[in-house]
Amino acid sequence: MNGPTVKPTLRADARRNRARVLAAAQEAFADEGPAVPLDEIARRAGVGAGTVYRHFPSKESLFEAVVMDRIDRLAEQAAERLDAADPGAAFFGYFEAVVQQALLNKALCDALGAPMSTPEEPKTQFRVQFGRLLRRAQAVGAVRPDVEPEDLPALLSSYLALQRHSNTLARVLIDGLRPQR
Amino acid sequence: MNGPTVKPTLRADARRNRARVLAAAQEAFADEGPAVPLDEIARRAGVGAGTVYRHFPSKESLFEAVVMDRIDRLAEQAAERLDAADPGAAFFGYFEAVVQQALLNKALCDALGAPMSTPEEPKTQFRVQFGRLLRRAQAVGAVRPDVEPEDLPALLSSYLALQRHSNTLARVLIDGLRPQR
Repeated sequence: MNGPTVKPTLRADARRNRARVLAAAQEAFADEGPAVPLDEIARRAGVGAGTVYRHFPSKESLFEAVVMDRIDRLAEQAAERLDAADPGAAFFGYFEAVVQQALLNKALCDALGAPMSTPEEPKTQFRVQFGRLLRRAQAVGAVRPDVEPEDLPALLSSYLALQRHSNTLARVLIDGLRPQR
Repeated sequence: MNGPTVKPTLRADARRNRARVLAAAQEAFADEGPAVPLDEIARRAGVGAGTVYRHFPSKESLFEAVVMDRIDRLAEQAAERLDAADPGAAFFGYFEAVVQQALLNKALCDALGAPMSTPEEPKTQFRVQFGRLLRRAQAVGAVRPDVEPEDLPALLSSYLALQRHSNTLARVLIDGLRPQR
């Protein structure tokens, strides 16, 4: 269960604390935005502020760990869908899941588009797995053949912009991904 | 031939000068951006700087007149397509023409999305005529029925964003506008 963001030398209780702080931080950032104080995150995690600082020396490092963790989990979710019986449904369902995560955490969305100071590993994994879902869906004719894995970040951000306007326009983009007559 | 942006009290030679300044300004803004000096616009128009200032007291007013004039002409082009034999081709062709204009002049694009201090008349006309082209294309089954005229500005700006990434993604959006199986 060790993700690439967990140092293998951490003891089990330290790992648990780190995971609790991360989970509390995800919630707190989602509820109160990136300005939420570290003390509030410690309170939500049920640990002392010192524990938070030990794992994450700055709020920035905590924020980056949250974003990395989310992308890590997205990559895992993509991998789980890779042997789905219906690759088209797996791709479109995953696209929707990524959008929902991005709506929950705009920072994630920024991370998907813009380079960040976090390690590239989780982002690369996410993109690789998402690209595989795309290729599988194309292989069974559920997605048009001329879309490339590199197009996925631009598709996601356009989808988000269109969905802010209306659900119909978001559907226009999704329907355009299907093979055309 | 009087557009709504030309004061009906202008004498014929004054109208001609105004039109020459506008045409020269369009070119100059396109070539050199909004920072181009008024003197350069006067030189391109073959008139004195005083003539430019008489019609357009500030560069801002000239810039707005250029944008209004472009939107005016787009509205006219839409009206001309309203009795085309193929309403689907008329709509998609017009969509492409608007995109090309927007690419030529990013200011036009901004004007289409954001409110400006110019009179609403040309923008309203443009939107009304574009909406009519959409409805005609929907009436013959060339465009999906759930898209509304109010969706057109958001579609245009997403199209531009997607096209910056690749022509394939721009086609994805256009294909999504067609009636779906």
